[in-house]
Amino acid sequence: MKKVVLAYSGGLDTSYCVVYLTKELGLEVHTVIVNSGGFSAEELQSIEKRAYELGSSKHEVIDVTERFYQDCLRFLLFGNILKNDTYPLSVSAERMFQSLALAEYAREHKADYIAHGSTGAGNDQVRFDVAFSVIAPQTEIITPIRDQKLSRQAEIEYLQSHGVEMSWEKAKYSINKGIWGTSVGGVETLTSHQALPETAYPTQLQQTEPASIEVTFEKGEPVALNGQKMPPVQLIQELNELAGQYAIGRDIHVGDTILGIKGRVGFEAPAPLILIKAHHLLEKHTSSRWQLLHKDYIANWYGTLLHEAQYLDPVMRDMEAFLESSQARVSGTVFIKLKPYQFELQGIESKYDMMRSKVATYGEENDAWDARDAQGFIKIFSNQLKIHSSFNGEG
Amino acid sequence: MKKVVLAYSGGLDTSYCVVYLTKELGLEVHTVIVNSGGFSAEELQSIEKRAYELGSSKHEVIDVTERFYQDCLRFLLFGNILKNDTYPLSVSAERMFQSLALAEYAREHKADYIAHGSTGAGNDQVRFDVAFSVIAPQTEIITPIRDQKLSRQAEIEYLQSHGVEMSWEKAKYSINKGIWGTSVGGVETLTSHQALPETAYPTQLQQTEPASIEVTFEKGEPVALNGQKMPPVQLIQELNELAGQYAIGRDIHVGDTILGIKGRVGFEAPAPLILIKAHHLLEKHTSSRWQLLHKDYIANWYGTLLHEAQYLDPVMRDMEAFLESSQARVSGTVFIKLKPYQFELQGIESKYDMMRSKVATYGEENDAWDARDAQGFIKIFSNQLKIHSSFNGEG
Amino acid sequence: MKKVVLAYSGGLDTSYCVVYLTKELGLEVHTVIVNSGGFSAEELQSIEKRAYELGSSKHEVIDVTERFYQDCLRFLLFGNILKNDTYPLSVSAERMFQSLALAEYAREHKADYIAHGSTGAGNDQVRFDVAFSVIAPQTEIITPIRDQKLSRQAEIEYLQSHGVEMSWEKAKYSINKGIWGTSVGGVETLTSHQALPETAYPTQLQQTEPASIEVTFEKGEPVALNGQKMPPVQLIQELNELAGQYAIGRDIHVGDTILGIKGRVGFEAPAPLILIKAHHLLEKHTSSRWQLLHKDYIANWYGTLLHEAQYLDPVMRDMEAFLESSQARVSGTVFIKLKPYQFELQGIESKYDMMRSKVATYGEENDAWDARDAQGFIKIFSNQLKIHSSFNGEG
Amino acid sequence: MKKVVLAYSGGLDTSYCVVYLTKELGLEVHTVIVNSGGFSAEELQSIEKRAYELGSSKHEVIDVTERFYQDCLRFLLFGNILKNDTYPLSVSAERMFQSLALAEYAREHKADYIAHGSTGAGNDQVRFDVAFSVIAPQTEIITPIRDQKLSRQAEIEYLQSHGVEMSWEKAKYSINKGIWGTSVGGVETLTSHQALPETAYPTQLQQTEPASIEVTFEKGEPVALNGQKMPPVQLIQELNELAGQYAIGRDIHVGDTILGIKGRVGFEAPAPLILIKAHHLLEKHTSSRWQLLHKDYIANWYGTLLHEAQYLDPVMRDMEAFLESSQARVSGTVFIKLKPYQFELQGIESKYDMMRSKVATYGEENDAWDARDAQGFIKIFSNQLKIHSSFNGEG
Repeated sequence: MKKVVLAYSGGLDTSYCVVYLTKELGLEVHTVIVNSGGFSAEELQSIEKRAYELGSSKHEVIDVTERFYQDCLRFLLFGNILKNDTYPLSVSAERMFQSLALAEYAREHKADYIAHGSTGAGNDQVRFDVAFSVIAPQTEIITPIRDQKLSRQAEIEYLQSHGVEMSWEKAKYSINKGIWGTSVGGVETLTSHQALPETAYPTQLQQTEPASIEVTFEKGEPVALNGQKMPPVQLIQELNELAGQYAIGRDIHVGDTILGIKGRVGFEAPAPLILIKAHHLLEKHTSSRWQLLHKDYIANWYGTLLHEAQYLDPVMRDMEAFLESSQARVSGTVFIKLKPYQFELQGIESKYDMMRSKVATYGEENDAWDARDAQGFIKIFSNQLKIHSSFNGEG
Repeated sequence: MKKVVLAYSGGLDTSYCVVYLTKELGLEVHTVIVNSGGFSAEELQSIEKRAYELGSSKHEVIDVTERFYQDCLRFLLFGNILKNDTYPLSVSAERMFQSLALAEYAREHKADYIAHGSTGAGNDQVRFDVAFSVIAPQTEIITPIRDQKLSRQAEIEYLQSHGVEMSWEKAKYSINKGIWGTSVGGVETLTSHQALPETAYPTQLQQTEPASIEVTFEKGEPVALNGQKMPPVQLIQELNELAGQYAIGRDIHVGDTILGIKGRVGFEAPAPLILIKAHHLLEKHTSSRWQLLHKDYIANWYGTLLHEAQYLDPVMRDMEAFLESSQARVSGTVFIKLKPYQFELQGIESKYDMMRSKVATYGEENDAWDARDAQGFIKIFSNQLKIHSSFNGEG
Repeated sequence: MKKVVLAYSGGLDTSYCVVYLTKELGLEVHTVIVNSGGFSAEELQSIEKRAYELGSSKHEVIDVTERFYQDCLRFLLFGNILKNDTYPLSVSAERMFQSLALAEYAREHKADYIAHGSTGAGNDQVRFDVAFSVIAPQTEIITPIRDQKLSRQAEIEYLQSHGVEMSWEKAKYSINKGIWGTSVGGVETLTSHQALPETAYPTQLQQTEPASIEVTFEKGEPVALNGQKMPPVQLIQELNELAGQYAIGRDIHVGDTILGIKGRVGFEAPAPLILIKAHHLLEKHTSSRWQLLHKDYIANWYGTLLHEAQYLDPVMRDMEAFLESSQARVSGTVFIKLKPYQFELQGIESKYDMMRSKVATYGEENDAWDARDAQGFIKIFSNQLKIHSSFNGEG
Repeated sequence: MKKVVLAYSGGLDTSYCVVYLTKELGLEVHTVIVNSGGFSAEELQSIEKRAYELGSSKHEVIDVTERFYQDCLRFLLFGNILKNDTYPLSVSAERMFQSLALAEYAREHKADYIAHGSTGAGNDQVRFDVAFSVIAPQTEIITPIRDQKLSRQAEIEYLQSHGVEMSWEKAKYSINKGIWGTSVGGVETLTSHQALPETAYPTQLQQTEPASIEVTFEKGEPVALNGQKMPPVQLIQELNELAGQYAIGRDIHVGDTILGIKGRVGFEAPAPLILIKAHHLLEKHTSSRWQLLHKDYIANWYGTLLHEAQYLDPVMRDMEAFLESSQARVSGTVFIKLKPYQFELQGIESKYDMMRSKVATYGEENDAWDARDAQGFIKIFSNQLKIHSSFNGEG
């Protein structure tokens, strides 16, 4: 009996796939769910139960949260990466790591097929197909939803015809929860002019009293929250919890899909937004002007290529090497004030703070140079402009 | 009698310069103040009065606001330029245009000297010296404050010794007001860890009731506010007024000075922040993926070079040509909600909205391609990754 | 009877298409050949004759050479564009303009179909399909060669079966001649290690006596050869003729195809190589440091996107605006020595030569600044490095 | 007695400095010469002898050739770095490493002063001053030549007046020899239009018979010449010797000095030119499209910043991390033909050659995808262009 590994999420589409792959194609179905920080233990249990009920031969939960952080999220943080200055790449990044884990599982278990439940309209199919064909090239890809384009009703009826009597209520908003942010799609995000209503966001405002917090970074990585040391993954989760109560980090991303069309999606990502902005502020104090300038270039491309399913391109490793090197001195503490729907960066403290060196200090009397030095500096600094300007009137 | 053009602001330093240049150097002093949108008629009158009292031979007010918009601000908007993702370059840009106007005035009036009151510690001296030496190369630059490094007290005593009995109270915060933002420096901005207190900002929160507004852009330029057509300069000023009541657009900029040290300055810039973010959102709907990517590069450098007194470099004209070309379809209306200390972009409407084309639509059924097309696309799209990966294990 | 516009070249593949489209699909075939400078009048006549013999209903020659120069080649020159530092994009650029002309012809003549003879393996199909589907979206694309994958022998037999008795000798090297270079493919270019033999190149060495020539540029465009004014297109052709006798401008390009695989192709492009290098030298004398740096970025991408069939993306217009602006002072004469297989740039003469300004001169005594100025310049120039270094030992 | 470390070269200027520092300033002079591959043992001995005759208290030769390769040259090779597409940064790079070694020597020996013999006109003073003030900030810099601006004749007379009767013939061309190239300045390079005469180059054509050679790279570093393994430094020296006989690698560089003026200098650099071009060809076969594109950006800036004395900026370490990472598969052999004044790259052989993978092969029948895949690819690939174009006529 041939074996198929199915990227299973517990939803209608992938539930349809379990039955279809078993009954129509006669395959042994391994349902695999990859947790990158978005599922609770209860959710995973309930998904497992459903998988076996549908006919899964083997259900597997792979937790990639730590790896996701090590191999991806910390680079997004090093690069202060917000796609189009807005979106922390919540789903883009997560889906890539889910795809990689699935592909590796399929390769390891010598699966004959690997299946996903994406449609033909969006980015996810690209991330799945790319990861599968690169990591597990001997394994054939099956995509029932993309190929068959069934309606929800048709899928439900098919499942019922095979004795599956689960309830498949359609949520008003399509939600994808992950450690690096939760995406929210709905009727408004299909328009260009409507904002999401307050209620569309899974996390609601619960705190109105401002609070001051501190995040400590060590070589660019967040290592302590309010002075308490903890692993970065835990810190992100606790900060999501804490800042989520202030409804911080909501926005709508408008961007280009890999397929060339524009898309729009809401999200809430309290910890990513706070960490990225706090990290960036720390860098402004501890990095050189040239580092800040060139990091922008590298980071913009790292985010773009990650979004576009190019994580496996070797240039990503080269960029990671650049980004990691740039963090040597990005250590210190950032002071942040949380308020409803927003946060303020108060300032930083760092032993590498270039504003506070012994060599020269901004805004005070400088012993580092005098008026005559400044005059000489500017004279030579403007040499080329003077030369260029000297031809005016001649041309 | 030799003639000196003095960049006069009405403050203690440049008042000292008027007397010093007249009495010590025996020069005919032309006091010139360049208004780029930061001075009211009353302020200008009071400054003029003071100038003549101090001994100015001729006082001149040059208004460059319109030119500042045409030759600079609209490009900052086209590029969505926030230095270090934060600062709209309020002072950096303004000082450059003040310097240029002064240099041209000096050249036109065949001044023998041109003077400014900057110290040797900051960026302003560079902007003045560069503009003066490039635009008016025959005119010698005099910088009494930079050269003499007098204390405030010494300056006041010198003025008193020449019969000037004005009051020179030192403000707690040093404020520079302009159409593209007001900078705020004080004891906190000399540290790395302290935020400015609420009271340090010249504009205080006056409105707590959220309001919805609309800004209409035509080829990237803001042309209507809430449906009412008006010139961009007026629109910026009205929006500053309106959004200032919500205390929107405050932040602290940490950046590199031209002299290589780090500096920190607070600012409030309600209209610039709103216009830049609104314009950017409109671009995400109307510009191609490649335009968005390459605009980031150009804009980052345009802002950096402007900040660093390189406005006269010909590459700035090349970048402006790029930016102007990129705005051909950046037309439409952006819907914005103002709230205390923050604003939300609700959405846009544009006849060039690429999310709403007849060719393909995001998130709905697509007639533009089918599953087989997507499969072929991804197969070829991942060719190079597959080739690269095929060597793994060999190396 | 439905109408098809066929991109006809006179070769076996497109000759097969004429018959196939007529006989099998029952279409009225318009054979169209687009000349972008690679065909002589004799060649065009012979191709026309053959087209009618094969059954073309209407044969059309469209000459786009001048437009090709105006809309593309001069920008390649402004940008000194050599793909991967080697290849002047001879075929990449030309094929794009041929495709555009064909698409416009089809649109104008309300063709039902548009056909090309490319295989499914290379770049040309992409350029054709992209141009056709963007410019003539109502017209369906037919690609018999790509779909049927016939052998040469099968095509010949098919033609014979329809009474076509032409001779179809397979050339040892596949040659594509154009104004911006001639590509040469053959058995060696399918390997990675073999060079093309001398005889593979269409133009053979005929001159061994070195010669000095002068090319004059006006705002970046070549306007005179050896002092004789002529239109740029004519200048390129004459220079190809002249320098071709020295076998100048041969090389092998190795690059990435749009489909993600690597390819290798020989070429000879005497005029493009000489003009690009001469133009670049002139720019080094007349452009600012910042222009040279940022032009590299723009040019690298302009060449890449052109190569990858993205000529119609609006960012290309933005880049062209940048490049055109950058040429304001790129005027002057370049002195070149031609020798067998190579050329040397001797120097330039320009009224905008920044090496020869009155402000400052390299290598001689400078009045523009003195030792004290230099000392001050360097002191401040190294401020940030000193600040950064002051933390060493602490971290 | 206070101690000064003098960057000594054996020429007139630094010989003057020895006597001046001893006699006028009463200092104990340590003459230090840093060899980065340009001096032979005989030259170094003769320089040492002269130093002691002039009054040096201690003469030291520091050989930094190996370090120069490890910390700099290999990155120039990884980046295929030719400034302005021409100049391998021969002197720019070397002078930086000489300056660093001198500064470290001064710091280690607790020198009170550190002196160099550069004038105030060029780049070298910047490299010296920057390295000295960053690495040895407690040590004061003395620059007799820059400060005193003496004529050659005045220096000679001063030396004679102190009993120094050496002969100081002025060479017609000023030569700076190093492992990464020899610079040649003379009367022609002070003009913009004259080439250097054949005789100005130190290495003359000695071989006219073409020869085929092979260079083998391992992770981007040259490790074997004609199949014989050797350390990279030795390989560069042997290749300089070998290819120098063909007068390969001559050209004239026109570029921007750090001081903002344009300069022109001839050079011969046979090994650097051959190695850079050979390495680049190998990368075209073994690196991904994205690596090639982004390496260009990084390399252009790495070269620019190195040239402009910014080697100590931490961004250089970040770029080195990127470049080193990019070389993981740049291994293989490049076949090169040497001919008088030129060389040809014949091809390469590499186990990572992406042109020769099992996945897909250029120009042959492809099993990797079929016509339907290509059609789907191009359809989706052109989505955005079609969407963009669909608005035409409306705007």
